[in-house]
Amino acid sequence: MGSSSPPWVRAETVDIAVDGQRIEGALVAPSGRRDEAPGVLLVHGWSGTPAGYLDEAHALAAALGCICLTFDLRGHGESEAQRETLTREDNMRDVMAAYDVLAGQQGVQKACIALVGSSYGAYLGALLTYMRPVHLIALRAPALYTDDHWEMPKRKLRVDRESAAYRRRSLRAEQNRALGACAQFLGDALVVESARDEVVPHPVVANYIAALANAHSLTYRVIEGADHALSQEPWERAYIELLVSWLSEMIRDGAGPAGAH
Amino acid sequence: MGSSSPPWVRAETVDIAVDGQRIEGALVAPSGRRDEAPGVLLVHGWSGTPAGYLDEAHALAAALGCICLTFDLRGHGESEAQRETLTREDNMRDVMAAYDVLAGQQGVQKACIALVGSSYGAYLGALLTYMRPVHLIALRAPALYTDDHWEMPKRKLRVDRESAAYRRRSLRAEQNRALGACAQFLGDALVVESARDEVVPHPVVANYIAALANAHSLTYRVIEGADHALSQEPWERAYIELLVSWLSEMIRDGAGPAGAH
Repeated sequence: MGSSSPPWVRAETVDIAVDGQRIEGALVAPSGRRDEAPGVLLVHGWSGTPAGYLDEAHALAAALGCICLTFDLRGHGESEAQRETLTREDNMRDVMAAYDVLAGQQGVQKACIALVGSSYGAYLGALLTYMRPVHLIALRAPALYTDDHWEMPKRKLRVDRESAAYRRRSLRAEQNRALGACAQFLGDALVVESARDEVVPHPVVANYIAALANAHSLTYRVIEGADHALSQEPWERAYIELLVSWLSEMIRDGAGPAGAH
Repeated sequence: MGSSSPPWVRAETVDIAVDGQRIEGALVAPSGRRDEAPGVLLVHGWSGTPAGYLDEAHALAAALGCICLTFDLRGHGESEAQRETLTREDNMRDVMAAYDVLAGQQGVQKACIALVGSSYGAYLGALLTYMRPVHLIALRAPALYTDDHWEMPKRKLRVDRESAAYRRRSLRAEQNRALGACAQFLGDALVVESARDEVVPHPVVANYIAALANAHSLTYRVIEGADHALSQEPWERAYIELLVSWLSEMIRDGAGPAGAH
């Protein structure tokens, strides 16, 4: 879809400075825009690549005029060598640094910044709401980890035997910091589940939904037949359609004075 | 809107038999239909009247071809004299009897029956999912009552001092039978809150949302500025728009093989 987006949508490379390093981002936005537009930060999963979010960025820029930033979490792309040692704390700082680059772009509407994340990126995105103003949050197949071992390399968490059991548990917001972040989130939320997710089982998604009970609005949808990575093209297309229609409704209604949100 | 709906939408009066009595219902549907269509049961609140749901019924029949039934809960309309003594159990039987009349109508798609309820009607509607197959549920400003005193006259519950405190509590699904019904509901759910609801405070709505974490999809929206009864016309119009667009999405996607729900 990136290549099929209209000619007035442009992608440019940006550098994001974090901890003395630079990670690469792609800023996708309509060219020649004049009015302010919503900003969208897209955060891929642990096994993902920013290229996997380029289609979404192009779709949101083309359909809604959003200014979108997708970027490499450390441990991916050029910094893959660090993969063995990176912690959640490191990647959290990546997300904050990327947010700051996006929020600092000319034309980004400061009161309308959306976080779109998948899997590990959705988990980090939920935590970002503690640290930065986020008005809309879209969590696809959100991962969940115990609060313990925050400074342990992320790679080790993934193979931890306890984590599979943890993801079967019904957890209250106060039992997990990402769920706690959701419980205090007052903006608009989208949660998307893959019907055949082999990594994130339904109880994790149910925990996120229950925690989001104070959001201004909540939209939860399932992509039928889909696996965790949305490995087939119709699944990714269904996800992009959901993203565009949800964000379109939210942006439109947010502007109305007494409309339904 | 009832009077402004297209000429091919017809309303007819039906009798609903319950406990040796008859309550009056209005069946609103496209005339001359051939294919099967979703059925929608609309349940008003304790102070409501079925006339208050006629506009919604006409809108759903006109926009989506649904077969809609709205009716008098006992204690309303012609049976107002019983108001002092009626219990939740009585009104629950009204809702089941009305469901059976709707489900028995020719042309109603048995695999696609929606419950639309407001306030007390939403509470009864949640409980109906224990008793009858309900595939879609729309809860507007859903009321919540303690499980105790099930056979106490409903009118007394309303003035019970404890109920205001109860509606401020964060409750788990296993602590309330209506929330428990939501927790086992696997269909599609819409929850609509009035931003300035003077009867149902936000914690009640949050309890319903959290309980609905196992629904196939969940859509939660707030009508800005609105009071509990949607006493101003733009608020009711916003609600009708929400109902129509939600049900339209659900019916459309339910038909697709691998689409997003």
